[in-house]
Amino acid sequence: MFRNQYDTDVTTWSPAGRLFQVEYAMEAVKQGSAAIGLRSKTHIVLGCVNKANSELSSHQKKIFKVDDHIGVAIAGLTADGRVLSRYMRNECINYSFTYESPLPVGRLVVQLADKAQVCTQRSWKRPYGVGLLVAGLDESGAHLYYNCPSGNYFEYQAFAIGSRSQAAKTYLERRFENFSDSSRDDLVKDALMAIRETLQGETLKSSICTVAVVGVGEPFHILEQETVQQMIDAFEIVGEQEGPAAEPDAAAAAGQEAAAADQGGSTEEGVAPMDI
Amino acid sequence: MFRNQYDTDVTTWSPAGRLFQVEYAMEAVKQGSAAIGLRSKTHIVLGCVNKANSELSSHQKKIFKVDDHIGVAIAGLTADGRVLSRYMRNECINYSFTYESPLPVGRLVVQLADKAQVCTQRSWKRPYGVGLLVAGLDESGAHLYYNCPSGNYFEYQAFAIGSRSQAAKTYLERRFENFSDSSRDDLVKDALMAIRETLQGETLKSSICTVAVVGVGEPFHILEQETVQQMIDAFEIVGEQEGPAAEPDAAAAAGQEAAAADQGGSTEEGVAPMDI
Amino acid sequence: MFRNQYDTDVTTWSPAGRLFQVEYAMEAVKQGSAAIGLRSKTHIVLGCVNKANSELSSHQKKIFKVDDHIGVAIAGLTADGRVLSRYMRNECINYSFTYESPLPVGRLVVQLADKAQVCTQRSWKRPYGVGLLVAGLDESGAHLYYNCPSGNYFEYQAFAIGSRSQAAKTYLERRFENFSDSSRDDLVKDALMAIRETLQGETLKSSICTVAVVGVGEPFHILEQETVQQMIDAFEIVGEQEGPAAEPDAAAAAGQEAAAADQGGSTEEGVAPMDI
Amino acid sequence: MFRNQYDTDVTTWSPAGRLFQVEYAMEAVKQGSAAIGLRSKTHIVLGCVNKANSELSSHQKKIFKVDDHIGVAIAGLTADGRVLSRYMRNECINYSFTYESPLPVGRLVVQLADKAQVCTQRSWKRPYGVGLLVAGLDESGAHLYYNCPSGNYFEYQAFAIGSRSQAAKTYLERRFENFSDSSRDDLVKDALMAIRETLQGETLKSSICTVAVVGVGEPFHILEQETVQQMIDAFEIVGEQEGPAAEPDAAAAAGQEAAAADQGGSTEEGVAPMDI
Amino acid sequence: MFRNQYDTDVTTWSPAGRLFQVEYAMEAVKQGSAAIGLRSKTHIVLGCVNKANSELSSHQKKIFKVDDHIGVAIAGLTADGRVLSRYMRNECINYSFTYESPLPVGRLVVQLADKAQVCTQRSWKRPYGVGLLVAGLDESGAHLYYNCPSGNYFEYQAFAIGSRSQAAKTYLERRFENFSDSSRDDLVKDALMAIRETLQGETLKSSICTVAVVGVGEPFHILEQETVQQMIDAFEIVGEQEGPAAEPDAAAAAGQEAAAADQGGSTEEGVAPMDI
Amino acid sequence: MFRNQYDTDVTTWSPAGRLFQVEYAMEAVKQGSAAIGLRSKTHIVLGCVNKANSELSSHQKKIFKVDDHIGVAIAGLTADGRVLSRYMRNECINYSFTYESPLPVGRLVVQLADKAQVCTQRSWKRPYGVGLLVAGLDESGAHLYYNCPSGNYFEYQAFAIGSRSQAAKTYLERRFENFSDSSRDDLVKDALMAIRETLQGETLKSSICTVAVVGVGEPFHILEQETVQQMIDAFEIVGEQEGPAAEPDAAAAAGQEAAAADQGGSTEEGVAPMDI
Amino acid sequence: MFRNQYDTDVTTWSPAGRLFQVEYAMEAVKQGSAAIGLRSKTHIVLGCVNKANSELSSHQKKIFKVDDHIGVAIAGLTADGRVLSRYMRNECINYSFTYESPLPVGRLVVQLADKAQVCTQRSWKRPYGVGLLVAGLDESGAHLYYNCPSGNYFEYQAFAIGSRSQAAKTYLERRFENFSDSSRDDLVKDALMAIRETLQGETLKSSICTVAVVGVGEPFHILEQETVQQMIDAFEIVGEQEGPAAEPDAAAAAGQEAAAADQGGSTEEGVAPMDI
Repeated sequence: MFRNQYDTDVTTWSPAGRLFQVEYAMEAVKQGSAAIGLRSKTHIVLGCVNKANSELSSHQKKIFKVDDHIGVAIAGLTADGRVLSRYMRNECINYSFTYESPLPVGRLVVQLADKAQVCTQRSWKRPYGVGLLVAGLDESGAHLYYNCPSGNYFEYQAFAIGSRSQAAKTYLERRFENFSDSSRDDLVKDALMAIRETLQGETLKSSICTVAVVGVGEPFHILEQETVQQMIDAFEIVGEQEGPAAEPDAAAAAGQEAAAADQGGSTEEGVAPMDI
Repeated sequence: MFRNQYDTDVTTWSPAGRLFQVEYAMEAVKQGSAAIGLRSKTHIVLGCVNKANSELSSHQKKIFKVDDHIGVAIAGLTADGRVLSRYMRNECINYSFTYESPLPVGRLVVQLADKAQVCTQRSWKRPYGVGLLVAGLDESGAHLYYNCPSGNYFEYQAFAIGSRSQAAKTYLERRFENFSDSSRDDLVKDALMAIRETLQGETLKSSICTVAVVGVGEPFHILEQETVQQMIDAFEIVGEQEGPAAEPDAAAAAGQEAAAADQGGSTEEGVAPMDI
Repeated sequence: MFRNQYDTDVTTWSPAGRLFQVEYAMEAVKQGSAAIGLRSKTHIVLGCVNKANSELSSHQKKIFKVDDHIGVAIAGLTADGRVLSRYMRNECINYSFTYESPLPVGRLVVQLADKAQVCTQRSWKRPYGVGLLVAGLDESGAHLYYNCPSGNYFEYQAFAIGSRSQAAKTYLERRFENFSDSSRDDLVKDALMAIRETLQGETLKSSICTVAVVGVGEPFHILEQETVQQMIDAFEIVGEQEGPAAEPDAAAAAGQEAAAADQGGSTEEGVAPMDI
Repeated sequence: MFRNQYDTDVTTWSPAGRLFQVEYAMEAVKQGSAAIGLRSKTHIVLGCVNKANSELSSHQKKIFKVDDHIGVAIAGLTADGRVLSRYMRNECINYSFTYESPLPVGRLVVQLADKAQVCTQRSWKRPYGVGLLVAGLDESGAHLYYNCPSGNYFEYQAFAIGSRSQAAKTYLERRFENFSDSSRDDLVKDALMAIRETLQGETLKSSICTVAVVGVGEPFHILEQETVQQMIDAFEIVGEQEGPAAEPDAAAAAGQEAAAADQGGSTEEGVAPMDI
Repeated sequence: MFRNQYDTDVTTWSPAGRLFQVEYAMEAVKQGSAAIGLRSKTHIVLGCVNKANSELSSHQKKIFKVDDHIGVAIAGLTADGRVLSRYMRNECINYSFTYESPLPVGRLVVQLADKAQVCTQRSWKRPYGVGLLVAGLDESGAHLYYNCPSGNYFEYQAFAIGSRSQAAKTYLERRFENFSDSSRDDLVKDALMAIRETLQGETLKSSICTVAVVGVGEPFHILEQETVQQMIDAFEIVGEQEGPAAEPDAAAAAGQEAAAADQGGSTEEGVAPMDI
Repeated sequence: MFRNQYDTDVTTWSPAGRLFQVEYAMEAVKQGSAAIGLRSKTHIVLGCVNKANSELSSHQKKIFKVDDHIGVAIAGLTADGRVLSRYMRNECINYSFTYESPLPVGRLVVQLADKAQVCTQRSWKRPYGVGLLVAGLDESGAHLYYNCPSGNYFEYQAFAIGSRSQAAKTYLERRFENFSDSSRDDLVKDALMAIRETLQGETLKSSICTVAVVGVGEPFHILEQETVQQMIDAFEIVGEQEGPAAEPDAAAAAGQEAAAADQGGSTEEGVAPMDI
Repeated sequence: MFRNQYDTDVTTWSPAGRLFQVEYAMEAVKQGSAAIGLRSKTHIVLGCVNKANSELSSHQKKIFKVDDHIGVAIAGLTADGRVLSRYMRNECINYSFTYESPLPVGRLVVQLADKAQVCTQRSWKRPYGVGLLVAGLDESGAHLYYNCPSGNYFEYQAFAIGSRSQAAKTYLERRFENFSDSSRDDLVKDALMAIRETLQGETLKSSICTVAVVGVGEPFHILEQETVQQMIDAFEIVGEQEGPAAEPDAAAAAGQEAAAADQGGSTEEGVAPMDI
């Protein structure tokens, strides 16, 4: 598993100008169960795959409300995600207390990214091992951001992170041009379809996924399990074989990718690591 | 025993996005003597296997009262568990002093998890080597949580941790659907049965186990040894051969698991380490 | 990938008097997508290649406004660049608040360089992994500076940094003598031509580049995408085959350079590393 | 003497979930000259083997008075033991000054254990290399505790630590059922017999052992050497060949154990190191 | 490139009593472009070779004014030099503010040397990688000092540092006996001649060198480029072939020296490293 | 000279429970020139061998007065010994200033030992490399202590430390039973005889040894050289061949011991290192 | 150049009880150009060999005035020596300001030694690399001390340090019995003769040596170069061939010694390193 001498300390540059420890932390995001997000002009929907440790436990919470107008879905180390969610919650409370208006989404995202950047430049810390999809609605409209362990952030129309997220991304890319004018319910349906893509042959049930919505006139909230099941039942008759068809190959590819990661970093990064 | 270059520092990521030091600390929990917990709508029962160092000593305390409505059972490093129990005790006292109401269980569990997360991100500390089953009753009902060295926590209907806990988990999974409506005494009986599963051929006696209960109208307390023995005697006539039947294989598996752990981490973790 | 024992700590000198960690951080600038800048007597134009992570995301912001009279374009780690941009923004605000006049560009550039120098002399930090082209207009005229991870800065008539910037530099060197008296629009056109040089066969579209201008009577602002596309359309008829002609060789060279960087530092540095 | 890569830093976990540095510190206790303790309902007796460096020196003090109702016997690094004894002394003084009642023994023992636990979780310290037998009498009766470098503590009826303590433990286990109702003098006699077991062929004399008593109406004090010699003389006629009989084998085993320790940790720990 | 185990930490002595990290930092001075200085009784002249990174940039500033009566020329890491120049500037301002007289040159040089010495005795810093020629005029006359990364300083009649400075030193040694009574203009001419010696075949032009003067009745200032060019033109007719004659050999020697430096430190240091 | 991986850091335990760095510091005491001490009921005498670096220097001071009633003789690193002596001097002054009575000897010795213990438990310090024989007279009588780098201390009737001290110890053991009732002058004579034992064939002269006395009615003071010479002359006639007889073998043994120390620690320590 | 694993950290003891880093720092003193000192009852003379870096520079100052009654000559790292000299100067000023009398020489020497000792016991510092000959006159007479990097100091009648000091020491040992009653001028003459011994064939001239005197009625001052030359001329006629006679062998020995130092520490230290 030996790779090189430049990858055990976050403050050490490789000769080719890379920070391996930051890239490795980004691998932790790929290992987490999938999370997806997509937005129309008025609504943003977050979804994730629930992973229960055993029959005996409830599943782990992976979507958090931050404020009435902001929520996050995470993939990666849950503990890191929880700590960062609380940080965001505090920032929102302090802002609205001081200015009597909600904290703009983009501003919160930058603060979050700065907090992550600091962890990539101190020898006694480690980069956070979690990716966050931040959904928010403010005066400038509906926003979906992805915050990454490197301290970078990106605005997206729709995005998917975590294990087997590639299949969901393919689905979203095929359809994202319609999202902007989608109704709230169509957005939720697309979220569920994208989640199904990541399931690798498992049947989509309301018990194994969580969906949350924030939009105009609708504060951030997680949908009831029954509501979700009804929507699944409604479209199951129509769209059964779309996703799973390409699954076997994708699964095989995912397996190879994991193996590659163990040997020497993901191959897909290639020329431009760390989203420079 | 050499494994790789990424596993001696808690702030170092492996190329595949894992924090080995955190995973190793979680192995310490597997090495501790077993602890189990289960809950109905109104009661939560904690149990553990007593391990005396010799005939001369009393057994080590592994179940602690935190407040009238909360208690914990630990597996792993007893010293770490004691320090964390006292932390919880202080939080409860401060809360009820300030708000004149008991600290909600879920809130305490999050604070505990945050304390653990900090130890996974500083180079001059180590993750705690202890798992805690937190049993508590508050306005939202009866709760059973498992707090893990990684800073994660999970809510459970019933759970078992520590050495040979797999057999207990199997027992609990077979029966957990009845727990929700169980009477307090049935819960205790199931706790004792689950403990017996972990004993690997030893006979269940009140001297080698501790059982504690918290429930509606019943503050957290450890049961008297005589009470426990009476319950054991009562069901011993009925349920003699259930558990031990599968024991030999389980024991063998446990042995192999321990060996595997010495060679390179537990095999059962596979794709998703650290409950991402 | 092993090179020598002097290149893992920023406070360690090599026997030949080099600080390898600083040189490696300078490699990160070469890995970033290209950014260019050029100036006449009255205007400065910054341009960069947008890199979107996928169809779903907007491209990452790489040109930042610092103040009405100053802006920056970055190449390298975006997170580092964002943190430094905010630092510059704060310095400008504080200065104009205190002195009621804009902060001179050269002075800001020195402060920025000092901030970078400190990171090359402390064992618990790492050098910043970003290069900044600083464009500014003040009483002494129009300025274009390049600030580098080593803590050095240089004043330029025109410059290009980032991946495949060599082709752009060649273009700029061929034409820089005209820049001083160029009209604002000619400057922008030259900026677009220089950006096209770095595209390696891709067609120049307004969607894949960003252009910003600051000049006499024109505060720093990023040009509208439509405006940019109109300018591209205007000259596309004329100058089609100029740049791409030399591209294949340049691309091959760039590939070799990248490979060389992985093996042992860039070959072009030769005698005088770190701009001594 | 090389063992593995996880045993040079107290904050590093092994893949099997062990803290080797803590276990090694516990070996220092095994290297110290033996100390024993036993208790009845009303009295506690501590004893130890004196080890003089040469004929010229008085023996090193290994039993310390902490307060009128508490005393300790140590095995391991004497300097560490002395520092911890003074800590206990201060705690007792402060408590009785504030509350005008003696500090309960169990409470002092927990504070001592917490002090030891901290040294197992900081990278710039080392675990204490000393084991302490704490004898104390308070409102809840007579107590005998063993505090260990790992931060654990145990309550005992009777216990022995240090080199060749196994023989003493065997003696104590054979007889401990009588201790609870023993007279003070019988307790002292049993203490002397247990000490004799650790001597490996040497004759028991008052000059090579120290005995201390604390009990109802009898503050903690070390017995006069003459008193001890009289007791030895009294039972020497009776019990001459009991202990030494098993000695040769025990000694051989002790030798092998020491050798094993040098090669790779004590074999008797097996599955559950560090008293998890 | 491996040399020995004593050369990666500035606080580590080699068995022969050398501090290799300090010696390596002194190599950085040899890598910088050349700087020279010389003085008469009334004037001091500093000169340096300008090194532009490309046609597009202005050359980097290597001569700095410190105060009306003091200036410096640097060779080595420009960023370090800039930081030290500002330090000197501040010292001068504070002194003249407090004492209403200019800071004596020798005093400033000692403070500068002390600042450098500190960096050779702390494990978390690195020695500065720059050499400074300090020219100053005060009540005790005209002074020229050389401050070195080791914390040493030397007073000189004339001196040259940086790459290919050996040829300039040879020139200065041949002529230094006349300097003391030289006129200001003769000093400048000698400075230009010495600079020409370091050019390795390149033609001396005012664009590739900078010259500064401080003297009686003449505050420290950098000469206009035209003035310099006129002086060059004036003597070019006379002294064309003097310097370059010995150049080929010197160049070869310089090349060998550089190679030697890469292999194991400069050979010319021999018996007495670090100017002990 | 490689021994094992546990002996380069004072906070690292070996698998057998030893702190090698502390043991190595104790070797420094064995390398120092010899110091001896002995006491009667009323007097304590300290003596040491003077070691002059050359004919030109006075010998180094190795016996220090601490207070009127206390003095020390050292073996090992003189600089460490001097620092510790001053610490003791300060403690005595502060005590007598506050309490208007001399500081009891035993109390000072414990404070000194605690100061040494701290240096064995911090990663950024090293244990002191000096052994101290502390001679003092207080209300409880005449005392002689030995303070060791490990933080231990011992009370002695008579003792010798430093190089070739074994021969002196043998002499003292043969005669120590008479010391208790010796006259002051007989004590001094025995001190001189013991010193002669360490000289390895050299003739005892007052110039190569220092003797100091403290006793009832006699404050701590170093004896005049003439006084010492007279005493030597007085007994030289009588006791000429006693000591040197056994010398050859002892010397050989000492040589072997030194060699052994270079290879791997002193052999005589065997089972119980560090005076546990 | 590899020696062992115990010599790269000043806080690490070797198995034989040595601190190699301190010994290596003492080698730096041997590498410096020679310094000598000698004293009569009323005067002390310091001398040193000047080493100019080139014809162009004045020689480096190696003798410093501390106060009217104290001065030092150094060998080793000049920058360290300068820092220590200033420390001494400050101590003298503060003392005479407070007590209105000059600081006793012995007291200053102890403070200096303590400052050096601290640097041998902290992991983030390095021992000073300089030896100081301290000459001073106070109420107790004329003194000459040698302060060494280990924190030790010695009083001398006459002494020489630095490269080739062995020849000077030989000269001084042959003649030191006369020094005590020498006249001031004879002392100076002996100083010059001793300096000549270190020159290895070079001719003694006033330009290559510095001589300073402090004595009764004569504050510390450096002799004029002319005065020195006159004295040299005066005795050159007489004592020409005395010193150089033994030179060839001494030189050869010095060469061998230097080589030995590079291989593994000086051989002459043998049994007792660091002046224990």
